[in-house]
Amino acid sequence: MSPVVPPLSKAMLTRFAKLAQKKYRDQEGLFLAEGLRTVRELIDSLPDPEMLVALIVDEGARESMQWFSGFRGKLFRADREACTRLAQTTNSQGVFGVFRKQPGGRFVPGKRSLVVALDDVQDPGNVGTIIRTAAWFGADAVICGEGTADLYNTKAVRSSAGSIYAVRHYAVKELAAELERLQGEGFVVAAASLDGQDYRRSGEWPDRRVLVIGNEANGIGQPVLDIADRLVLIPHAGERPNVESLNASVSAAILMAGLAFV
Amino acid sequence: MSPVVPPLSKAMLTRFAKLAQKKYRDQEGLFLAEGLRTVRELIDSLPDPEMLVALIVDEGARESMQWFSGFRGKLFRADREACTRLAQTTNSQGVFGVFRKQPGGRFVPGKRSLVVALDDVQDPGNVGTIIRTAAWFGADAVICGEGTADLYNTKAVRSSAGSIYAVRHYAVKELAAELERLQGEGFVVAAASLDGQDYRRSGEWPDRRVLVIGNEANGIGQPVLDIADRLVLIPHAGERPNVESLNASVSAAILMAGLAFV
Repeated sequence: MSPVVPPLSKAMLTRFAKLAQKKYRDQEGLFLAEGLRTVRELIDSLPDPEMLVALIVDEGARESMQWFSGFRGKLFRADREACTRLAQTTNSQGVFGVFRKQPGGRFVPGKRSLVVALDDVQDPGNVGTIIRTAAWFGADAVICGEGTADLYNTKAVRSSAGSIYAVRHYAVKELAAELERLQGEGFVVAAASLDGQDYRRSGEWPDRRVLVIGNEANGIGQPVLDIADRLVLIPHAGERPNVESLNASVSAAILMAGLAFV
Repeated sequence: MSPVVPPLSKAMLTRFAKLAQKKYRDQEGLFLAEGLRTVRELIDSLPDPEMLVALIVDEGARESMQWFSGFRGKLFRADREACTRLAQTTNSQGVFGVFRKQPGGRFVPGKRSLVVALDDVQDPGNVGTIIRTAAWFGADAVICGEGTADLYNTKAVRSSAGSIYAVRHYAVKELAAELERLQGEGFVVAAASLDGQDYRRSGEWPDRRVLVIGNEANGIGQPVLDIADRLVLIPHAGERPNVESLNASVSAAILMAGLAFV
């Protein structure tokens, strides 16, 4: 361990450990990422170096310390006990990054636009994976409706593989109302549903599309179903499926791949 | 709690707790599932009632106990301490099922056949999600190559959402050799790779296809690349992608959806 790396102060430890709670993330405008890979992915995709607030590395993790040696002034060492306080998962490897949240807010849709909306998607891993996939397919925004896991939850950040900054995203209190607003801007609202129609055969698509993904167990809620323009489903093979449903982030991915290029 | 439900014996607890380790799962031909939803999904998809060995429910979990009351003779109650010993994740809710592994072994391919092969896919959640998706798309088999997480790992079982019995699956020591065997039976081997060609534009597909998915960080290994007939990629939007790659189970799903119906 390099002697020039200062220790994390108690005040900083207390402040950063609180970022495990959404309340404090919202209050501070910060979030915590853990694990060498996740932290590196976030650093690689920073829109502005100022979005990185601090890097904290276990004083025994020499290689990681080496890797971050260029971040003098933001790099701190921590003992095992401090690392345990910061870690939300078993994957931290003693590497933590504190970052500023994306400014967020609504987006200006392009002439051609794909938006993904999440209606009560509760698993943070699904939410993070969906934003990663949305980034790949060039979505303009991800809208997190009521009940949806916070995208800045440590598990969601991990699943997003550094794509937190790559797609505009924002939370709304009433998803149906936000979708109606988008309908007013020419968006067609397609809701993924087992009662829908084969997505490959649901007619022409206008240039602006919102894909809505619902809750893992219960699908899309009534308020959104009431205003949706189309219900789309992913057909299964055979007369009856061999499993009840697809995973929410898998459904989202197949439908995004279907909608991104038609 | 119903007084007729017998307690889990110490011998059974010791035996079942060992199922956390692959060595004992292989030795006993059994695996452990946890969480009400996962256990119910597995029960709903049992090919034979004999594949269910035991149901263990926390004596305080009245509703779950009720739900399983029809399984007399296989239902046992356990105290908190025993449940803690059995639990591999924080999602157990005090509900555990012990099941027999699928007999496994090679499959007899249909005239038209989709097979998914996993080359060093290390995340159990990805492996479970891929088998769930393969079940949806009616794949004939999932082949687990060297380095791939065990499908009977508790996390993989959870992600598979009860589809463990819905698709034939087996592990091989040398994936490239197994794929060459399938090539001899008329299969085309398509490997997912960022160096590949757009999967929607990779020409005609013969009726028998193997889709190979590689390691989360490093992709497909050289032995499989050396024998693959095609490399396929999922195109991103825009000139350069906003994120480095897709999640392995997401790539698998998009490619399966693409291959299942062409």
